[in-house]
Order: sequence, then structure tokens, then C-alpha cells
Amino acid sequence: MTSGAGLFVSFEGGDGAGKSTQARLLADRLRGAGREVVLTREPGGTELGLLLRDAVLHGDHVDARTEALLYATDRAHHVASLVRPALERGAVVLTDRYLDSSVAYQGTGRDLGADEVEQLSLWATRGLLPALTVLLDLDPDVGRARLTSAPDRLESEGDDFHRRTRLAFLDRASADPDRWLVLDATRPADDLAAAIGERVDALLAAGVPGAGDAAGTVEVTS
Amino acid sequence: MTSGAGLFVSFEGGDGAGKSTQARLLADRLRGAGREVVLTREPGGTELGLLLRDAVLHGDHVDARTEALLYATDRAHHVASLVRPALERGAVVLTDRYLDSSVAYQGTGRDLGADEVEQLSLWATRGLLPALTVLLDLDPDVGRARLTSAPDRLESEGDDFHRRTRLAFLDRASADPDRWLVLDATRPADDLAAAIGERVDALLAAGVPGAGDAAGTVEVTS
Repeated sequence: MTSGAGLFVSFEGGDGAGKSTQARLLADRLRGAGREVVLTREPGGTELGLLLRDAVLHGDHVDARTEALLYATDRAHHVASLVRPALERGAVVLTDRYLDSSVAYQGTGRDLGADEVEQLSLWATRGLLPALTVLLDLDPDVGRARLTSAPDRLESEGDDFHRRTRLAFLDRASADPDRWLVLDATRPADDLAAAIGERVDALLAAGVPGAGDAAGTVEVTS
Repeated sequence: MTSGAGLFVSFEGGDGAGKSTQARLLADRLRGAGREVVLTREPGGTELGLLLRDAVLHGDHVDARTEALLYATDRAHHVASLVRPALERGAVVLTDRYLDSSVAYQGTGRDLGADEVEQLSLWATRGLLPALTVLLDLDPDVGRARLTSAPDRLESEGDDFHRRTRLAFLDRASADPDRWLVLDATRPADDLAAAIGERVDALLAAGVPGAGDAAGTVEVTS
């Protein structure tokens, strides 16, 4: 990795799995080591994204394709205006949810088709994939019990929806172990943070090609 | 055409070409003949669409892919919540701009690629194409002189952008003459209205398959 190339890490998993906690703990660790860290989320990581997040999670009913397109629009703007510029100046970007959430929730959960939803997001982001995706895996029933605020539209979906999205995450992770780190989200937060930190340190030390280097990402043309 | 199938007509062309005037004149004519007419537009034909229209035409700068995705999201919701239900109950739906505007402005004007932008819109709408698309063709310089309000983001693009989008509309029209009716927008409004009315009457009389019959539209799976 050249000194100008950052590292892109996403956190995935069901609601209440501890994604934002672990992202914050990793940010603290990396900042302590002197790295610039951008801590962000989807949907809603930009001003336009907040408006789209509100429309998709709390607005009137929208059909599945509109929902998928709202997320893809948020992602396109998030990547173009915030994620890529940060990676290009060498920062570590940590995002609470990214493309894999769309594939799991809209592709599998909403039956739009995982491949179609993935292609949509790859087009939206000009093929930007994280160097590392941390999956905090959790039984949906346990996750729901952990939630402290009123559920949004996706959170209030039924048990079957959440079981299918959990399996979708696990399937994607097992198909690409180089990119994914799967962790049992019931483990103590400090243990999880240590496991994540170790993997990130290894990536930073190795300077893996494609570790968030925007110039090295796949360009999707179809 | 069965009695339950409506007719879907779009109006395309540059700014100031008279699209909304001609859509209104056609609506009056059809209502006079006892048809239910839904007169709408893109972007902004729905409540969510108004919010997206504002974001794309008057908001902060967004990159070309985000812009294309905002239009596709607006279109998906417009079709699912307004256009398809109206066609299914037998109405005539007249829209001021539709998919071909995205192909011309984002695909050709913004260099995203006509095919990719068309595929995006076809996915968003589950393949719904108009039975008739009226192109009001006009020299961009003449169109600009006709505008009475302050230009929005697309209207204020340069001459080359508007020349290329005009050619993109003409190319698409010549490739599919069954769907398109190309008219010189400098002709008197009454003449144009008569030419459009004649073509629409013929379509309604013939009951052409695919004339807005949602069940007969192409399903796009890629």
C-alpha cells in the first residue's frame, strides 16, 4: 500500500449486534496509534443521505425497488463525496453498514435477487469494496431484545425476514473469507475489539493491495 | 387492448420545447372524449419524488451516478405508486419526461453510458415503456430563450451538453419509430396538438398490445 492509500472497513450484521460500538472502539484504537479515522454509516453518512435515510426508514410505504434504489443513491453519494476522498488522502474509513447490508436486506430479505442488488451497488460505487468486512453475527431474537429505541421499518420486519438476512450475511462471508471476519456478537465487547484490532493491524502492516486503495478497485461496467 | 388496460404516453425534449403545454392539451382532448387522464411528470410526480427533485435540481453538488440514481429512484416510486395503478384501471397516463430523459441527460450528456442508464431505469420500473413517446424537437438556443423561470442545474449546463442530449433523443427516436413521434417544436401549438391527438386516437382505436398494458410489458431481469 502506498502512503496515499487508506483502509476501508465495513461492519455488518443484524440490529443490536454491536456494530456501532465496535466501529467506535476500533476508531479509538487507530486514532491512538496516530491514524486519521473517518467513522461513518449507511444510510445517512452525508447531508443528502440523512434525507434519504429518513425517506426509507420512516417515510410512507415505498416498494422494494424504490427502497433498494434509495439505499444505492445514498451509497453512491457517500462514496463519491466522503469515502473515496478520505481513502485517497490515506485515512482509515470505518462504516456502520455498506453494500452487503443491501444485498442481505433488499436482495435476499425483499426477494429482489442478491446478484441484481449487488450489481446496482457496484455500479453506484464504481466497484468500491471494503478490504475488510466485520460480521457481528447474532440470533435476531437476541438482537431485538438489545434495541433501546423504537424500531424503524426494517427493524420491525418479521422473524422470517431477519432469519433470512442473517443467513445471507453468513453465506456471503463464507464465500469470501479473505474479505470477511465473522465474529459471535455475544462475546464480550473487549474480546471482539481485540479480534478486530488484530486483523486490522495485520492489514495495515501488510499493506495489502486493494486495501481501500481506490485506484485498485474493480470497475464494473455492466 | 382489454378494457382494463390504459395507455402510457411520455413527452420528451429539451427545456422550453412545450412538453407540459402539449401534455395539457392532450389531456383536455382525451377528457373531452370521456377518458380518465392522469397528467404527471418526472422528476417529482409523487411526494417522495418532490423531495428527490429538489435534491437533484437545486441541492448541493452530487456526482453523475448519484444524480442518475436519484432520477431512477423517483421513477421507481412514480411507476409503482402512480403510473401502474392508473394503467391497470384503464386510465391514460401522460408524463412530462420519463426514462428517455435519463438516457439522454445522464447516459449521453453526463457520459455514464446510454445502455447502463437505460438498464437502470428498466430495472427500476420492471421494464415499463410508453406505448408512445412524443419528442418535441427544438434547437437548444431557441428553447433557452423561451424559459421564463431561473434555470435549474440541468438547464444551466453548457451548449455542448444540450446539443448532445438533443442528438441522443433524435437517435433513440430513429431507432424505434413505432414508439416515437418526432415533431418540430417550432410549429404552432395547435398544429402539434392535432398531430399528437391523431396518433393517440389511432393507438386507442387499434388497442395495440403493449399500449400501456402493464401485463404486456417487458420484464427485465439483468
